[in-house]
Amino acid sequence: MFVTFEGPEGAGKTTAIAAIAHRLREEGREVLVTREPGSGEFGARIRELLLHGEAMPPKSELFLFLADRANHVETIIRPALAEGKIVLCDRHADSTYVYQAIVRGLDPEFVAAANRFATSGLIPDATFLLDLDPQIGLSRIQTKDRLDQEPLSFHQKVRAGFLSLAHADPARWHILDATQPTESTVQSFFTWIDQK
Amino acid sequence: MFVTFEGPEGAGKTTAIAAIAHRLREEGREVLVTREPGSGEFGARIRELLLHGEAMPPKSELFLFLADRANHVETIIRPALAEGKIVLCDRHADSTYVYQAIVRGLDPEFVAAANRFATSGLIPDATFLLDLDPQIGLSRIQTKDRLDQEPLSFHQKVRAGFLSLAHADPARWHILDATQPTESTVQSFFTWIDQK
Repeated sequence: MFVTFEGPEGAGKTTAIAAIAHRLREEGREVLVTREPGSGEFGARIRELLLHGEAMPPKSELFLFLADRANHVETIIRPALAEGKIVLCDRHADSTYVYQAIVRGLDPEFVAAANRFATSGLIPDATFLLDLDPQIGLSRIQTKDRLDQEPLSFHQKVRAGFLSLAHADPARWHILDATQPTESTVQSFFTWIDQK
Repeated sequence: MFVTFEGPEGAGKTTAIAAIAHRLREEGREVLVTREPGSGEFGARIRELLLHGEAMPPKSELFLFLADRANHVETIIRPALAEGKIVLCDRHADSTYVYQAIVRGLDPEFVAAANRFATSGLIPDATFLLDLDPQIGLSRIQTKDRLDQEPLSFHQKVRAGFLSLAHADPARWHILDATQPTESTVQSFFTWIDQK
């Protein structure tokens, strides 16, 4: 079971994932909590370049996310799924499509093809979108990375982008109101997984 | 004028490019000498990951080369071409096609499309292949990086790959015998450029 969590920084993805993982483990299930960009040693170096390095062209940014994703899927996510673990992933291919194609304006067809290539066609069983007004999200975060420092209009496009993906594929996406308490996200997750 | 030099490590690309640049400058022409991977500060960090980092999946390797290429073309090569400089580049998109598609076996169509995307369609005006028996090339180099340490069969596939590209597009490619002195490569270059 591969489940991804999308939405802006400050939406509470990390807290919600931790709470869900805790409860799954209490139920005796094996869980892997992971994130993009930046899992493993290789990923950590890519994450450093992406979030704390100097400015770079949007295409280079895209390819760095894909380098990290290819490594993450092949060396961490697929092995965990093969062991029967539930994988909870903080951001995945949908983030790349929203940020690089919808917001930065890179060719959407190429970005989609590159995502399929990087993941070898792995698609989440479910994606939970923690939807939030960007002004609330930005006010919640303490240390802003390179992307957080973009203007408000950038973050509004990100929000609209995620909502458009979610509306286009309601079977996979679950839109959650991130102003609600964490317990509400946890509930939505267990309502979904208990029906599986 | 955008000219690339391809071929294995130890074939003498760096020495030949330096000699060509020297003579072009003597003739009063403006020249930019550059290389992939690793031009500029961003490129240097990518080069470090690629050549001296730990092992990574072939797809991640591909995407790192592309991240570097996109940055290199947009911030270094195209501006130099726009200023009328002759750009001499040590390795470019053809290396990626040979190493990642022909040798590593990644989908050739995707690799070609990704190269076009990374370069925004920039194609060299000429490419000089310094062709060499891999055993001679490997015996010439002092410090072996991660790729140089691959088995001989890997380097033989690389050689065959470059030759197949060169034979497929003789208008762009010039196949040179890298056991000949540097002056022979310099001559071939000036024979070509003097006809332009």
